[in-house]
Amino acid sequence: MKIYNESLAKMKQIVDTYTSQTIDLEIEKTVSTIIQNVAKDGDEALRDYERKFDNVNLADFSIPEFQLEQALDEIDADLRAALELAKRNITSFHKQEIENSFVDVSTPGIMRGEKITPMASVGLYVPGGTAAYPSTIMMCGIPAKLAGVKRVVMVTPPQPDGVNPAVLAAAKLAGVDEVYQIGGAQAIAALAYGTETIAPVDKIMGPGNIFVATAKKQVFGKVAIDMVAGPSEIGILADDSADAREVAADLLSQAEHDKRARPMLITDSQSLATAVSNEVDRQLATLPRKEIASVAVSDRGFIAVMDDVADMFELMNTVAPEHLEVQLANPTQYLGMIKNAGSVFLGRYASEPLGDYVAGPNHVLPTGGTARFASPLGVYDFVKRTQFIQFDEPSLKADVKAITKLARTEGLEAHARAVEARFSSKGE
Amino acid sequence: MKIYNESLAKMKQIVDTYTSQTIDLEIEKTVSTIIQNVAKDGDEALRDYERKFDNVNLADFSIPEFQLEQALDEIDADLRAALELAKRNITSFHKQEIENSFVDVSTPGIMRGEKITPMASVGLYVPGGTAAYPSTIMMCGIPAKLAGVKRVVMVTPPQPDGVNPAVLAAAKLAGVDEVYQIGGAQAIAALAYGTETIAPVDKIMGPGNIFVATAKKQVFGKVAIDMVAGPSEIGILADDSADAREVAADLLSQAEHDKRARPMLITDSQSLATAVSNEVDRQLATLPRKEIASVAVSDRGFIAVMDDVADMFELMNTVAPEHLEVQLANPTQYLGMIKNAGSVFLGRYASEPLGDYVAGPNHVLPTGGTARFASPLGVYDFVKRTQFIQFDEPSLKADVKAITKLARTEGLEAHARAVEARFSSKGE
Repeated sequence: MKIYNESLAKMKQIVDTYTSQTIDLEIEKTVSTIIQNVAKDGDEALRDYERKFDNVNLADFSIPEFQLEQALDEIDADLRAALELAKRNITSFHKQEIENSFVDVSTPGIMRGEKITPMASVGLYVPGGTAAYPSTIMMCGIPAKLAGVKRVVMVTPPQPDGVNPAVLAAAKLAGVDEVYQIGGAQAIAALAYGTETIAPVDKIMGPGNIFVATAKKQVFGKVAIDMVAGPSEIGILADDSADAREVAADLLSQAEHDKRARPMLITDSQSLATAVSNEVDRQLATLPRKEIASVAVSDRGFIAVMDDVADMFELMNTVAPEHLEVQLANPTQYLGMIKNAGSVFLGRYASEPLGDYVAGPNHVLPTGGTARFASPLGVYDFVKRTQFIQFDEPSLKADVKAITKLARTEGLEAHARAVEARFSSKGE
Repeated sequence: MKIYNESLAKMKQIVDTYTSQTIDLEIEKTVSTIIQNVAKDGDEALRDYERKFDNVNLADFSIPEFQLEQALDEIDADLRAALELAKRNITSFHKQEIENSFVDVSTPGIMRGEKITPMASVGLYVPGGTAAYPSTIMMCGIPAKLAGVKRVVMVTPPQPDGVNPAVLAAAKLAGVDEVYQIGGAQAIAALAYGTETIAPVDKIMGPGNIFVATAKKQVFGKVAIDMVAGPSEIGILADDSADAREVAADLLSQAEHDKRARPMLITDSQSLATAVSNEVDRQLATLPRKEIASVAVSDRGFIAVMDDVADMFELMNTVAPEHLEVQLANPTQYLGMIKNAGSVFLGRYASEPLGDYVAGPNHVLPTGGTARFASPLGVYDFVKRTQFIQFDEPSLKADVKAITKLARTEGLEAHARAVEARFSSKGE
């Protein structure tokens, strides 16, 4: 792994590698046509596209409930136990994200408040093949159900040997209500606009290829969408107290996801830097996905040696990594210094994969520096707020002068007249 | 106003008029070029575009702090008092939206939690001319400051006679930290990518024309953006107890915003329907903005007469209006029936413009049916969450079997080895 010994200012330039996504007008157009056709022709268009893109003739898209139950019964006992442990912990953690409506009646005559309401329905896109992760289905479905969403719909591209039983079992455990075998931009269109078979949803989430991502952007506004997820990242802050073998293993756990994944170590120890770099090479040699991980390590990974802990945190906040491990002595004391990160792993035994699977916090996290403004997926992603006010006559009367002044300053006469109508006689 | 006497099913079809935004590839391309040039050439590109699009030669974009203070001193006393009343009430309402970090240490050996952190900086786009509303600046700036955002930046197109003093005064009261006279797609690009003068922000909000809206969509991912706001809407649920004159006045208060604004009355009273329709015509005659309001009323407005209150609410939830007035006897009893609305006004004295200006709740609200999944602008829009976990050795050990089972099921061997590294001897 490349080791940098640079100033903080120089390192900030090196890590700021955001590049704007170029818009591919051909893909935009193709996707736009697919969406229009599905919106217009419904199931028939879906069948046409599935024939064209996935080479399948589907009489019925839907996977019935009993097949989910069957999958759950069929998977091996250890896998089932692991999924159930994950479910318990994801549930107990995310319950704490449930928010309450509030009402303020501190001023006599005035009631003001905000009400939390779950979305009626959400859709989850699950990619096909080896990218279909049962754990992600749990991470999406459980918070949605805790939020009170009545209808959680999953779509996934049809597979030659049928949908992976582990995926169906996870869907069952997560409380998914409907599953359809459709994929690509046409699946996103169906979720947004609905067809004869599939009722439309209010929000669409989940990763996918460029067609899926483009379709999600195009239906944004008609429905809500989650963030567009980028390649995995792990940033590790470590000092001499850290174990080079464990640090290297954790860097590789994210490097194996994607050739564009980004493993990063920021340290104040030159000796740890060298030891981790050597360990990464040693461990890479026996890794099944070494072809992927080695590209991530050499193209996108780095080790930065900084002067002190303050600089280490400042650089890490600039990176705003998806996953952040704090492998420093007394790690909890640094929580206040972390401004930008998706999920934080404190100390030696909070290895990143613990959070991916069973610890309870979410693993759908902001990537590509978006932790500056975005949050992990949570219960709050599946509710919306509605404000409300009630005023009695004297309370409105006391505000008429201010309201009409502001309305007329903004050139909005009908606004002023509306409140005045409450206090003027008929016919005026 | 058009009065419908149709079934609920038929009315649902009539109100569901969402049309997908067609993508104008020419505009996309123009905007993409502007963004790339500003990202590359910074201030110089900004100056070029301001010369080209706004016909001004700007040596310095920034409006210094003292000009904001001066504007606040110069506006008339009634306007200042009204803005200060608005500020007090917006502040007291939005304080209640401030959320707390949480920590869960209910399982010995395990700490899990979620930390709330304000965004470092946000940008507010304020359109020029008569569309520059001082009230909107307060509605955006105050929640951002309550969230703890250190740097709130406002951009607004240069005006022939200088920026409206009411706008500058509102910016001062709202706590805006920096103001720049730039507009259009180039202003959005500057906020997203930064220039020599303007440091980049983490989130961009505020309304604008098609170039501004397209630019916001294109920089989405590099920064966060708010929803793309559509024309104003007001939905009124009223029975025979309502005053036709007041209902009509409130409908017109939104109709005057935009020819595409949507005034809607849903009632169970044929006589109220007729009376409101007549009142709308009568009041329109003397309205300064009658040319705009009359188009909104005739093209987009409607009155629906339904069989009962249950159908009235079901239809209104389908519409999901930005503003919802409940002009029914005992209005608070219906709060639980409201699923989709931005802001709710209960009873005769909660006239919609009260909420636009001084009541305290926000007036930046979801439009176009997006209240199904979106919320009013609030303090929660200016923070993000970061999860954290700490496990001790026995706690991780207890989960190793489940983690490695799930990791290997998903084909992620390096994930499994990372947690195993904590419990195996060196060299293994």
